[in-house]
Amino acid sequence: MRTLNVALAERAYPIHIGRGLLDDAALVVPHLKTPRVAVVTNDVVAPLYLDRLSAALRGKGVRVDAVVLPDGEAHKDWPTLNLVFDALLAERCERSTTLIALGGGVVGDMAGFAAATYQRGMPFIQVPTTLLSQVDSSVGGKTAINHPLGKNMIGAFYQPKLVLADIATLDTLPDRELKAGLAEVIKYGLIRDPPFFEWLEANIDGLLARDPERLARAIERSCANKAEVVAADETEQGERALLNLGHTFGHAIETGLGYGHWLHGEAVAAGTMMAAELSRRLGWLADEDFARIEALHLRAGLPLAGPGLGVSRYLDLMASDKKVEDGRLRFVLLAAIGRAVIHADTAPEQVAAAIEARCA
Amino acid sequence: MRTLNVALAERAYPIHIGRGLLDDAALVVPHLKTPRVAVVTNDVVAPLYLDRLSAALRGKGVRVDAVVLPDGEAHKDWPTLNLVFDALLAERCERSTTLIALGGGVVGDMAGFAAATYQRGMPFIQVPTTLLSQVDSSVGGKTAINHPLGKNMIGAFYQPKLVLADIATLDTLPDRELKAGLAEVIKYGLIRDPPFFEWLEANIDGLLARDPERLARAIERSCANKAEVVAADETEQGERALLNLGHTFGHAIETGLGYGHWLHGEAVAAGTMMAAELSRRLGWLADEDFARIEALHLRAGLPLAGPGLGVSRYLDLMASDKKVEDGRLRFVLLAAIGRAVIHADTAPEQVAAAIEARCA
Repeated sequence: MRTLNVALAERAYPIHIGRGLLDDAALVVPHLKTPRVAVVTNDVVAPLYLDRLSAALRGKGVRVDAVVLPDGEAHKDWPTLNLVFDALLAERCERSTTLIALGGGVVGDMAGFAAATYQRGMPFIQVPTTLLSQVDSSVGGKTAINHPLGKNMIGAFYQPKLVLADIATLDTLPDRELKAGLAEVIKYGLIRDPPFFEWLEANIDGLLARDPERLARAIERSCANKAEVVAADETEQGERALLNLGHTFGHAIETGLGYGHWLHGEAVAAGTMMAAELSRRLGWLADEDFARIEALHLRAGLPLAGPGLGVSRYLDLMASDKKVEDGRLRFVLLAAIGRAVIHADTAPEQVAAAIEARCA
Repeated sequence: MRTLNVALAERAYPIHIGRGLLDDAALVVPHLKTPRVAVVTNDVVAPLYLDRLSAALRGKGVRVDAVVLPDGEAHKDWPTLNLVFDALLAERCERSTTLIALGGGVVGDMAGFAAATYQRGMPFIQVPTTLLSQVDSSVGGKTAINHPLGKNMIGAFYQPKLVLADIATLDTLPDRELKAGLAEVIKYGLIRDPPFFEWLEANIDGLLARDPERLARAIERSCANKAEVVAADETEQGERALLNLGHTFGHAIETGLGYGHWLHGEAVAAGTMMAAELSRRLGWLADEDFARIEALHLRAGLPLAGPGLGVSRYLDLMASDKKVEDGRLRFVLLAAIGRAVIHADTAPEQVAAAIEARCA
């Protein structure tokens, strides 16, 4: 087991990474306020892992209630969130009860927002079971649900007490989701870690073949990068915004198609290619760097372009983005592999041209 | 104008109290991040004060959008909150836009929760227009909506940047709401300020007659008490719970009757009498103190007993309270006028007897 610490001033927490952690309730119990938890999961993950996690906790004398939600980004909405509140209230969960998210990014985001707001905040633990949630969404305290007019528009910054990334759960992950997770892994290399990007170029085939050692290293390196960024800027006043590389375009794809058609990681991959395209057109990113980025996404089986929503629809969707300030979009662009910058003065024509060039 | 400061470490903020503050946009503008606000109000307050507040802000070059909600505790729910999100997104409000709550406790709680969660948090200003919200709900950062199974069950701790209590807005307040506000004013005397309780005994008639100087003093003293408590214990780990005197019983009344039948302050008054009754029965509160508490509530025109829901229904409703820990209810009880204590070991029979004695 490898352990990383997210060094937040008052609410530092550990990320444990390893195989079989799901059954090791001794890792969880020290973080509980009272011997009582409510597990939030979905109908795909529950048959695989809910009984194991529950049995391990009950073996340590912990009362376990569970809420099983429908799977998928299309259900990351208020009615589904309300199922969590209904269950917590029906079981009379207290504000000292710990909420455990068992599942991927959607479960983690929704369960985290439920924990942030049930009785104004209850303790929260993440047990991510997808590559994307292990490397990204379970770390850093962003929680949210979607609104029909925009992704992640309603949410809170709310830090977990513990993240337990059991790599063995990736054994059951569909290939498409594994690839989608790699989009966020590649992102860390692109924004701040050139050696990691090179390592990914050398090891992408092994990752796709699910080599356990390589997966563990990719997860650890991703979490370490994210933990450093989040510790420096918890509520995204500055550097943390770099983690959004590809996400402004990506969110437009997800909202524009309707939630659940593209996986988040797939939209981020296409969005990253749009950001790279824009960076190249602005003369910031060298052609050879662009080619390497494109090649790595291609080898990872990720989309290199977004769906054909039409440029004006993209621009319209992006105008509602959380990164808009004073009516101007702030883009995360690339100056090189491993160096991202935030730019607020991009001419709309250039943005439009980059989207045009990277639309199916 | 009188000014108090709520001394929170990183997020200290001023409370201005005075007549005509609504028209003084110069008090607001220094607290805006960008010259843009969204005002959340209701259909009773909007015709009275929305145009004045908007005109004052526009006069200082601020863009003002407004969302008008239906009035009343019955609408402190998710569908109504979602009207705020719909409007914020339709107008493309940014996370740097400031949300202003203009209205009573329901508007403040809902607008505050919207501000806490829109794009994971936008700046927030309270402009309370009822006595209850001026002395209580607009100070301290508690925001929430109700769930059919429990009052204020979904919410967040989220501090305003500024509270602007314009006493002139009380001129239009219905008598019933003025009295309901006095329930929370009396509470501050009861839990921690014996001289203030005595002052209230001497001045209750003048307050009911809306004497401006007496109202200003009652509001200032209430806010000062609340600010001290909140500064010491922002997220209610300890002393802050004393502010909930009467609220466990009171929330049971509100939830049991269905939201909107009793005003919050009326339920708190009946709940305070139940807490006093229980304190007396436990031998903590002297009979003469009890008599003074009852007399002051009577003179303020407040209920001295709760509705006849039946004792078992009360106990059932209270079992879902946020103050339950390890299955045990923690009651705020009175040891004397001006001295409240938290007690977790009250025998259920004694609680039942106190409710029975104070039910209509």
